[in-house]
Amino acid sequence: MRAVRLVNGSPDTTVEAADRGFVYGDGLFETLCVRAGRAPLWALHFARFRRGAARLGLPVPEEALFQQDFRTLLEQSDEKEGVLRLQWTAGPGGRGLARPRQPSPTRVSAFMPPPPYPPQHWRDGIALYLCQLRLGEQPALAGIKHCNRLEYVLARREWEQDHMPEGLLLDAGGRVVEGTVTNMFAVRDGCLYTPALTRCGVQGVMRETVLTACNGLGLPVDIGDYSLEFWLAADELFVTNSLIGIWPVRELSGRAFAVGPVTRRLQLTLQQDGVAWMPAATTTDTPDS
Amino acid sequence: MRAVRLVNGSPDTTVEAADRGFVYGDGLFETLCVRAGRAPLWALHFARFRRGAARLGLPVPEEALFQQDFRTLLEQSDEKEGVLRLQWTAGPGGRGLARPRQPSPTRVSAFMPPPPYPPQHWRDGIALYLCQLRLGEQPALAGIKHCNRLEYVLARREWEQDHMPEGLLLDAGGRVVEGTVTNMFAVRDGCLYTPALTRCGVQGVMRETVLTACNGLGLPVDIGDYSLEFWLAADELFVTNSLIGIWPVRELSGRAFAVGPVTRRLQLTLQQDGVAWMPAATTTDTPDS
Repeated sequence: MRAVRLVNGSPDTTVEAADRGFVYGDGLFETLCVRAGRAPLWALHFARFRRGAARLGLPVPEEALFQQDFRTLLEQSDEKEGVLRLQWTAGPGGRGLARPRQPSPTRVSAFMPPPPYPPQHWRDGIALYLCQLRLGEQPALAGIKHCNRLEYVLARREWEQDHMPEGLLLDAGGRVVEGTVTNMFAVRDGCLYTPALTRCGVQGVMRETVLTACNGLGLPVDIGDYSLEFWLAADELFVTNSLIGIWPVRELSGRAFAVGPVTRRLQLTLQQDGVAWMPAATTTDTPDS
Repeated sequence: MRAVRLVNGSPDTTVEAADRGFVYGDGLFETLCVRAGRAPLWALHFARFRRGAARLGLPVPEEALFQQDFRTLLEQSDEKEGVLRLQWTAGPGGRGLARPRQPSPTRVSAFMPPPPYPPQHWRDGIALYLCQLRLGEQPALAGIKHCNRLEYVLARREWEQDHMPEGLLLDAGGRVVEGTVTNMFAVRDGCLYTPALTRCGVQGVMRETVLTACNGLGLPVDIGDYSLEFWLAADELFVTNSLIGIWPVRELSGRAFAVGPVTRRLQLTLQQDGVAWMPAATTTDTPDS
């Protein structure tokens, strides 16, 4: 499968060099998991897309046109599994930083092959690198999925891909925030903990889905500020995003973690609910089975 | 005059939609003032370009190729005055945040008409809007001119263009940082003050030029952290950038400022040195002449 792409609804691989997305990173994006030709978390992705546009003062992303793009891309690619990446920028023009009074947003939709993650990530968990870069605190941009991602690019340069698939980011105050492309959860004495993401970080759609699942299962959740020490004292750790669902963490900063029962239960719940997938037989050999 | 543009040395108005500049803002830019077919601060711009590339881990910007672009654009446009905008991004590709091991950077060079600023800005000074948005502190990105400019786009949305050409930005700690497209200087009891820009902000090429001029004139300079209160108690305020040189500030936060002798002296010095221009007769009617 090769990536297929539409720009403003037409088959194209290019955008204007004067596009404010290219010039200033003036835009938003969403990365959706597609299975069996469907994107089950579409509504949550679009809710965040709209929140982001409101925050940045961009026109509302045109959901019906993105839906049409999705249908067209599925037909073009003749595939049913992959990653749908949607981007919505302020478009070309304006006087320097000032946008045009009537922006002409740019809409880019691309359908790409799923990333080749090994099944062990779901089953045995991952080792989490501890990034040295601290995220800057900017409440005006916190929570949304905007296109200013240099901090994350820099963090991702700190370690090699091969032995650690993800890195943990703290903020300038030393609080746990998120991974470079995931959100973070800890389990301690039966309660779940996840950072509030009001100063920095992205409020992930899978994070929201996990919080909803916890509510349904009657699992208590605390959303707040947590130190690295608190995190390292957890019983279980896991990371989430739209593409992976849940990966347990088996190591962080020299501490080993078992893949625990709460993590497994949530993995299975999301799978049963049809909102996240795992490779076959992921959970047949768990430490607690 | 219309804008003319080269992408990787060829006449083109587009870049790849998969370019990391478009996807993540993964790049750098420079905005140079061109007069009489020359860019006198070229060397300083390129020094910052290289510092930025080193900081972001990008390949070194290809100066000889950008110079060739500049010559080509001058020929194409048949103009000698304008703005040269250079951009250097990580190019297309990579696995998500991780850049390719051998990036193929994208080089965009554009030559545009000079902005139509009124002569009064140089002569009488400008009213400075006080932005509500506070800049986030991120030492890893401070000082360089990268393409993650959403904070500045948001700040620029706070006020209307017409009556105030620039806005003052403070950081989260309430310290004076810069304008949305300028650096800030204060004069107090004969000494110049300008923010250090180690936590956020862009170290402007004209700021550097002014600091060099101060050294030549024997004017004392203090580079550090300053509160808004300190700033409002100044004798003179002015803003700088490559395109405008120096604009005096005549009003900030309800306080009026005279265009003072140090500001005028520096304006004239930069003009005599051939590194900044003013409209004709800017200084013939100063308050202190």
